[in-house]
Parts: sequence; structure tokens; C-alpha cells
Amino acid sequence: MPAPYPSLPAADPDLAGAVADTLDAVRARRPLVHNITNLVVANSTANALLAIGASPAMVMSPEEAGAFARIADSLVINLGTVDAVSAGAMRLAAAAAQEAGTPWVLDPVAVGPLSFRSELALSLLRFRPGAIRGNASEIMALSGLCGAPADGSTGDDGGGDDTGSDDTGGGRGVDSAHGADAARSAAIALARHTGAAVSVSGAVDLVTDGVRTLRIGNGNPLMTRVTGLGCTATALTGACLSTASDTLQAAAHAMVLTGLAGEIAAEEAAGPGSLQVRLLDALHALDRDTLVARARCWWER
Amino acid sequence: MPAPYPSLPAADPDLAGAVADTLDAVRARRPLVHNITNLVVANSTANALLAIGASPAMVMSPEEAGAFARIADSLVINLGTVDAVSAGAMRLAAAAAQEAGTPWVLDPVAVGPLSFRSELALSLLRFRPGAIRGNASEIMALSGLCGAPADGSTGDDGGGDDTGSDDTGGGRGVDSAHGADAARSAAIALARHTGAAVSVSGAVDLVTDGVRTLRIGNGNPLMTRVTGLGCTATALTGACLSTASDTLQAAAHAMVLTGLAGEIAAEEAAGPGSLQVRLLDALHALDRDTLVARARCWWER
Amino acid sequence: MPAPYPSLPAADPDLAGAVADTLDAVRARRPLVHNITNLVVANSTANALLAIGASPAMVMSPEEAGAFARIADSLVINLGTVDAVSAGAMRLAAAAAQEAGTPWVLDPVAVGPLSFRSELALSLLRFRPGAIRGNASEIMALSGLCGAPADGSTGDDGGGDDTGSDDTGGGRGVDSAHGADAARSAAIALARHTGAAVSVSGAVDLVTDGVRTLRIGNGNPLMTRVTGLGCTATALTGACLSTASDTLQAAAHAMVLTGLAGEIAAEEAAGPGSLQVRLLDALHALDRDTLVARARCWWER
Repeated sequence: MPAPYPSLPAADPDLAGAVADTLDAVRARRPLVHNITNLVVANSTANALLAIGASPAMVMSPEEAGAFARIADSLVINLGTVDAVSAGAMRLAAAAAQEAGTPWVLDPVAVGPLSFRSELALSLLRFRPGAIRGNASEIMALSGLCGAPADGSTGDDGGGDDTGSDDTGGGRGVDSAHGADAARSAAIALARHTGAAVSVSGAVDLVTDGVRTLRIGNGNPLMTRVTGLGCTATALTGACLSTASDTLQAAAHAMVLTGLAGEIAAEEAAGPGSLQVRLLDALHALDRDTLVARARCWWER
Repeated sequence: MPAPYPSLPAADPDLAGAVADTLDAVRARRPLVHNITNLVVANSTANALLAIGASPAMVMSPEEAGAFARIADSLVINLGTVDAVSAGAMRLAAAAAQEAGTPWVLDPVAVGPLSFRSELALSLLRFRPGAIRGNASEIMALSGLCGAPADGSTGDDGGGDDTGSDDTGGGRGVDSAHGADAARSAAIALARHTGAAVSVSGAVDLVTDGVRTLRIGNGNPLMTRVTGLGCTATALTGACLSTASDTLQAAAHAMVLTGLAGEIAAEEAAGPGSLQVRLLDALHALDRDTLVARARCWWER
Repeated sequence: MPAPYPSLPAADPDLAGAVADTLDAVRARRPLVHNITNLVVANSTANALLAIGASPAMVMSPEEAGAFARIADSLVINLGTVDAVSAGAMRLAAAAAQEAGTPWVLDPVAVGPLSFRSELALSLLRFRPGAIRGNASEIMALSGLCGAPADGSTGDDGGGDDTGSDDTGGGRGVDSAHGADAARSAAIALARHTGAAVSVSGAVDLVTDGVRTLRIGNGNPLMTRVTGLGCTATALTGACLSTASDTLQAAAHAMVLTGLAGEIAAEEAAGPGSLQVRLLDALHALDRDTLVARARCWWER
């Protein structure tokens, strides 16, 4: 298990500039991001996508999801409140996305303890997501379900009941930090097994393609007291994927955007309610200067 | 194609007073507004209805929607995240509303590119909505689906991928303004074909019954970066319909209420998150003096 | 019918301290609260649970709800936007909760006028909820459906059309106060019939186990203009139940937490939008000193 980060390494200025390039591209192209997501975060993730300049569309029925995934610029599939009907829509959309070349991201909310969604998540991996984002528990569970060999995995992330909407993806607490590190081997194995960029949210996020690994140190612990900020990171991953030449970097850029917006929002927030509102304001206001000055992203050596 | 509005005509003081009368009536009667809506905006439209003094109820299952539409004061049907089950509820509710004389409004979110909801929208028109509200793309698509003859329609609204929850109904950007004008002929044809008042959201909104046409110039471009403000205008149309003797004016009043509340909210908003919160505060605080001073509504000559 | 409360009795300091004990316990144990709730309030109730320190999970499909109710610390069932599928999930979850000893709370939103949910609510009572929370109309309707004999019930709560998401559970208006008093006999009868603690929201809330009755006088009338604050009280009841030795007191503590947070939020709110945001901030900031100073809770003699 890697050592925790008592103090963070210096951020890489090239990486910060690349985040700004991605944000510029999203604002210029206004990608149509197709979401099949959970009812807890449908509003907040649509607003986050609008705030960074993307064009979200929630098209979630089996009757329409396949056709829409073909015309969208990217697809976001989030298992949060999945049922049999929406599971069918997810399968159709993922298959259509693969066929049409629409990049897509999977958020395997709460996989592991619940067999229905665990089997669904496994079946969706066949359609080759470009990215997967979860918290440490979810990534470890999904990696294990795949039978991906995880050398040195501790199998213990200190957050075993982190299910459903209590998504601490944007979390920056000590427990979650431990989580992201604990999931390192599982994430690398999952990335190698699936070909996806795998993002693990935590106090310090980890994003890997199985060869290269990026770390992101933006965020604030109060983010763990707002529902759906992990789902927001996933939605923004969808937006960034649509403009990306390098999937790994696109996935990391979404973590920086979410984390930094939350960090800025927390500075003046009176609590989690204010933080949720200010995070949207901060996403909308993010610019190159702020990203260059404050993005904390570096390559793991 | 009508000329764009480089500067807005003077507002009509009689129309501003009529908006205030409608708001007073809603607050006095507290109409029970039945909503079958999408999961992105269920919370925000319920709050908008409460903020202007109405009594919203989201009763969305086939088991209950028909019975409830009979006892409600008005009905709002929004296709945003429709699936086979909710489509059934919509048909039952619309049929019951027509039979019971409950006025109702249709929001044909994203009709056009998606055949399932396009066919549903067409089938719902048989139940004679009192009003239809959409953005330019949606109104042009629905009008075309009806085969409504649209003299002089340009068929190009500059916003072809404006689907799903990226509903720019409350939008006040230049592109959307172009959209509302581009949809003028289609809206008039749709109104004549259906007998409904047709509202087209844009930088300057257009509301027509096929003979008379009103324009509304309230709003702010930041509103296009908040999800569901078009759906909010539709929900408020439902509230206004319940108190109206003149359906055309009721539909226009809802556009003024939404646009002016957004305009006031934007004055102090730090971004789209704040705007969403302040819009509810502004709706709740709207009064006759503010409406008379700031409503920008006029008859098209 | 009991007399209305022209001025409120002195709060009981022991009760205020007990609320603080419950809040401390929730924050220490971080109970996993399983919610099967309506799509209007899924986000806001998840955020309220996070704000007081609980761990919410919205697991709402028939495929998963039974299994999850066994591992959760408590269960919240809210009928707001129930349909045939979610009704099945509710039955499975309630049955599993009863079998596993998971305490659970029922929010019978809009029972009475709608037969589908009225029959569902009745059938769920077989699984022995620990608590039931509603507004006066709902509690009177449910008590009547049970055939629970309500001595002295007036049968008139002044809020007959209070259905759906216009849930004035957290309401503090004069009309709602009348409601809670009007439902007193029905609540006592329902509590005796079911064995549950029954909470009636109003200007002054009433919580009874059929023998003892508590009253709570916190809140603010502006809360009636925000959707889902009654549902929030129900969700917090779920959190408090998980830590409780005395179910009656746990149910009352949730009403104090919701009412006091709303009361504090209203002090600086510019309207209902701000109130919703500040309520989450206030829940997160609540501490023992504030509760001891401001909780208004007393035993009915």
C-alpha cells in the first residue's frame, strides 16, 4: 500500500494548463452529454454540466436511450437508482455508444454489496467504457468482480458501507484519502482489464490507465456532506471525454474541475447547502488563471 | 422571417397590470397544480409553484394520474424523461383533464429527433391542451409533426441540438432570440391547428393563439445555464391557466413571471447556482409595483 | 378538540438535552439510512441526512430494496410519487425490515383521496413501522382507513387539498397549527392501532405513541413554501430511529431538528429558495448549546 500524503507534491504546471485547454474546448464545442443517471443527482449534474459549458440531456428510457447515444457527443451511465427498466436503457445506450464511437463513462455506484447492480456493471464493461469513476470501495469491488488481479491490494478501504447516494467521490476526508490509496492496485488492475481510465475519488484522487497514474489534490472535506459530488465528477468526465485526445488526462481534468470548484466554494460556504450552490457558481467562473494557480495535479512516479 | 429586435418596444402597461392580477389570483386561490414531469426538474418546478403561491402535486403513476387530473385545478405534462410507464400516465391524465374540463399545458421537451416522444406528443394533442410551451426547435418540430402549414417558416432556429434537460426555455442568449423569431410561423400554425396558446421561449419570448401574438422581453442570458427554467415557465403556465379567462394572456403571464424573476435574480447572482436559488426568492417576492415597473410585454402589431 | 396554542408553554430542558444526545449519536454512528422516496425530494432529503451526519442511500428497485433494508440501520418509505414498481419495492423492503429488526418510518403522502396509495399504506402497516409522519390530513385519512376509533376527532383540519409534494409537514402557518390539533385524536388512535409513534406536522407539531404526547413549537411559516420539508422531517426520523431507545422521543427529536433548522434558516433567508439552502447549513451547524437554548419541546399534560 502506498504511503499516505502528509504533504502534497508540487503541482505540475503543464497539467494545469491542459485542464484549462479542456475547459476551453468544452465551452467552445458545447458537447451534447447524454446522461442515464439516478434521480438523486439528475438536477445537480445537469446544472454542473451547464455550468462548465456543456449541453446535458437526460434521456433515460429504453425506448430512446439507444438512438440518443448515437447522436450524443458522450454518454454518462450512473447506477445510483437503477432498476430493471433503466438497466435495459443502459445496456442499449452502452451498446449504441460502442458501435457509434461515442465515448462513455461508467459510475458503478454501490457495486459490491448489491448483486443486481454488480452483475449489471459487469455486463456494461463489455461495451468498453472510456472511463470508470467511483470511490475506493466501488473500484475495489468492481475490480474484484472482474477477477482483475490486483497485486498488493489491501482489500480494506475503511469505507465499506459507502453506498448509494452517500457518494463521497468528491470527498476529502481522511478516511476517503486512505480509500483512494487502498484502491490503487485494484484501479490499475481494472484499467488494464478494461482498457478504461479509472478514477478513484478521495482526499487525494487517483486516475490511472494501468500504466500512467495521475493524482489530484484539490477539494475540501465539506464536499463529503453534499450528495452527488462524486456523480458530478463522473458527469464532468463525460464532458471532458468528448473533447479529449488523451482519455487518461480527460478523466483527470474532470477531477480537477470538480475538486477545485468545491474547494473554492467551501471557502465562503456556511455549510453544505451553500457549498452546493457555490460549487455551480465556481464551475461557471473557472478560468485559465485560476486553474494555473490552483490546480493540484501531478504524475505519480 | 420577422426582423430581430435590436431594441425592445415599450412595454404595455395594461398587460403588466394584467400579470399582477393573475399573480394575485394565484395567491388567493392557491390552485392545485397536477404535474407529470421529468425527474430533473420535479423539485425545482414544485418550488417555483410554491413560490408564486400555487399548490403543486406530483402524481405521476398510471394508477393515479387519471383520477388526480379530475380533481386538480390544472395539469402540467412535461415529456423530459418520459418512458413507457409515464407515457401511459400522461395519456390517462390528459384524457381525464379534457373530460373534466381541467385546463392543461404540454411541454414537448426534445420532440423531433426522438420518435417515441414525438409520437406521444402528437397523440396527446388530441386531448386539447390549453397551452403548449417549448423552445424554438421543439415548437418547429411539433408543428411540423402535425403537418400544420407554416407560411414563411425558415426551418432553421440555430439550436438544433437543444434537447433534453438543456432546456433553454428561459434562455435569453442571442441564439435563442433568433430561435423564437424563427419559430414564429410554426407557432402560429400550431396554435391554429390545435386551438392552444403556443409559447416559444427565447431572448424575446413569443406567445400566440394563432391570431394575436404577444412578446415578452424579460430575462437574462445566465438563465440558459440553469437547467429546467423552461420547464419552470411551463409549470407556471399551468398555475396561470387555472385562473385565466384569456388563455393567451395566461400563457404570456407565466413567461413574464419566469423571465422577470430570473432577471431580478441575475442582478445579484454570482453564477448559475445562485441564480437558481434567487429566482425562487424573487418569484415569492414579486408584487404589483415591480411588475408594473419592470414587466416587458407587448402586443405584436 | 384541544385549544389552540395562543402562546407556547415553556420548553422542557430535559427534552432539549435529549435531542442533543440523539444528534451526537447520529454524528458518531453515521447510520446508513435506506430511503425509498419520491423523486421530488430525493436530493433534498439525502442532503438533509448528510447534513446531520447520517449516511443516506437511495436504493429503490424491487431487485435490491429487500436485501438493502436488511443491512441498513433504518428505512424510510415515502409514498410521494409511488407507482406499481416502487410499491413492490416498498413492500419487499418493509417486510425485510420487519424480519431483520431494521426500524422504519412511513410517510403516507397524500393518502386519502387516492385509492392506490391508500391501499398501499394500509398494506405497509402490517410490517409494523416504528414511526409514521404526515400532515394532519394524511394522519386523519390513514387513521380512518385503519378504522382506528378516534374519539373526539373533528374530521376537519382546514387543509383538505394538501396533497402530493405540497407537503406542509414542516409548515408553521396558522392553518397547519389548526391541522395538527384537529388530528390529535386520529393520531392517538393510529398510534394505538399500529404501535407506531405518530408525528403530525403543523405550526405546533404533535408526536404521540398513543399514551404519551409531545409537542414541538419550532419552525417558521416560510417553510410551507419549500417543497419536501415534511419529507425531510420523515427522513430525519429515520436517522433518529436508528439510534433510539425510545421511539417516541426519537420521532420528536427529528421534528425539533427540522423545525429549528428551518427557524434559524428563515431568520436570514430572502425567500423560500434561500431558506432551502440555509436549512442544510443550519442542520450541519446545529449543536448542543443551540438546541438547549432554542428547542421548544414539551410534554402534553
